[in-house]
Amino acid sequence: MTTVLISGLGLIGSSLARVMRQSDEPITIIGDDPNDDTSQFLLDQQVIDERGTLVNAAKRADLIILAGPVSVIVNQLQQLTQVTLKPDVLVTDVGSTKTQVMQASKTLQHRGIAFMGGHPMAGSHESGGRAGRQNLFNGATYFLVNGSQTATQVERFEHLLQAAQLSWVTVTAEAHDQLVSEISHVPHVLAANLVNTAAHQLAHDPVGLNAAAGGFKSTTRIAGADPTMWTAIMMSNADAISTQLDTYIEQLEQIKQAIKTQDQDAIYQFFDRAQTTRQRLESKGDLQ
Amino acid sequence: MTTVLISGLGLIGSSLARVMRQSDEPITIIGDDPNDDTSQFLLDQQVIDERGTLVNAAKRADLIILAGPVSVIVNQLQQLTQVTLKPDVLVTDVGSTKTQVMQASKTLQHRGIAFMGGHPMAGSHESGGRAGRQNLFNGATYFLVNGSQTATQVERFEHLLQAAQLSWVTVTAEAHDQLVSEISHVPHVLAANLVNTAAHQLAHDPVGLNAAAGGFKSTTRIAGADPTMWTAIMMSNADAISTQLDTYIEQLEQIKQAIKTQDQDAIYQFFDRAQTTRQRLESKGDLQ
Repeated sequence: MTTVLISGLGLIGSSLARVMRQSDEPITIIGDDPNDDTSQFLLDQQVIDERGTLVNAAKRADLIILAGPVSVIVNQLQQLTQVTLKPDVLVTDVGSTKTQVMQASKTLQHRGIAFMGGHPMAGSHESGGRAGRQNLFNGATYFLVNGSQTATQVERFEHLLQAAQLSWVTVTAEAHDQLVSEISHVPHVLAANLVNTAAHQLAHDPVGLNAAAGGFKSTTRIAGADPTMWTAIMMSNADAISTQLDTYIEQLEQIKQAIKTQDQDAIYQFFDRAQTTRQRLESKGDLQ
Repeated sequence: MTTVLISGLGLIGSSLARVMRQSDEPITIIGDDPNDDTSQFLLDQQVIDERGTLVNAAKRADLIILAGPVSVIVNQLQQLTQVTLKPDVLVTDVGSTKTQVMQASKTLQHRGIAFMGGHPMAGSHESGGRAGRQNLFNGATYFLVNGSQTATQVERFEHLLQAAQLSWVTVTAEAHDQLVSEISHVPHVLAANLVNTAAHQLAHDPVGLNAAAGGFKSTTRIAGADPTMWTAIMMSNADAISTQLDTYIEQLEQIKQAIKTQDQDAIYQFFDRAQTTRQRLESKGDLQ
């Protein structure tokens, strides 16, 4: 019997619990979350078996998954250094950025506890434990950052999540944070900025937002996401994000200039290059 | 019997034909398009009844819909001044921008021909007559710009497209071009720029594009669209687009600065405002 403790029963934490429920191994899932409503819902749905707190339940766990925001994970890694854990426990997290988490895990690792960084690349504009689902990650990339885990621990962890058919990729914390900045954090800033710019300019025009067709809606869908979570992500990956925004703005200035001067060739090259790259992306995975 | 001539059997033109096919009125649809393959496909599917050319078929038409790119529409409006048309014919277009089209229609209007500008707010990253479908516009906004049409002509036109349950909105050409720049043209530039920036930066990282989760994919979906069409749109609405890009860049510089200096309050306000606006948009229509 494997005992899994998940701290943070939001979209990601509760979906991981749902995936593990499909495992062929007999497991007990203990859930830790301050939200009574979500916790009761997940108990009723038998997604979790018990409710507990991180500090009290940690000693019973074979696997501890920290599934809160990065700022919470960092605190919890400190708390866990005060608890006597099982000798072969694996502690891991699902934080959106990894440099800060890996840094914060050092004390725990120095005490001989196995820690491995993790980040499943799935998400939604929805949030919360009720929005979780067992197919949230299907076929997604799950990044792992090596800490002090053993090969056997990795294997057992991947086995527990087998039902999600994840694609496991090991990266360094720095490479991870660069990459997610490009494919997730910067797009998020751009979408939110577009919504804010349009809202300001459309304020005098009641027809405007109503008329927004597919393009605007799909481009800005992610701007509907939880501001608290995204603020925490920006705070924990500020360097990579602001540096990449510099590059983005520089290139945007160039195409703006081409449009302003009606440089037809430059405009065509710009859209043609984007179409080619976007079609390559499309052929490599399902559109969500 | 109403004879409708549609010039340009791409996504929009062929979808309008498909909608009109559901009308209770007996109609003949003549299609004009240089593409033999698409034209034959639409004949086989009985979406159009005949193939013709604009100049030859115009004299028989009660309704002429110019459904090519804006640059083509502008030329065709000149060509139509050389043809003897039915006295009560309505000429309209579906061009993505309206200022240039309304300007180009003046000669025709001075000759006593009724012209009305139009633009159905629907689109797709797909293009071409085979991609058209009868539900492309369902519930969408259809902008009309007053030219010299009569109220009866508007009524008959709207009746022919009744099956699409469009929301008809009359605007000035200038207001239209400002608005579509905000909700369609600028988002398109941003998405293409994001794909281009990421492509450049991810070139050394084979894992990158594969790992892109929902956020990146949905934000950049529209960057897969036809570069020729989008170049034409940029050329015909250059002022509004480049001016709005100025505003966008200015605000992006501000949030970039807040991220760089880790100004938590400013970052939170930014995402919170975006979420509120985006949720209002969501509640006003279906997500595509």
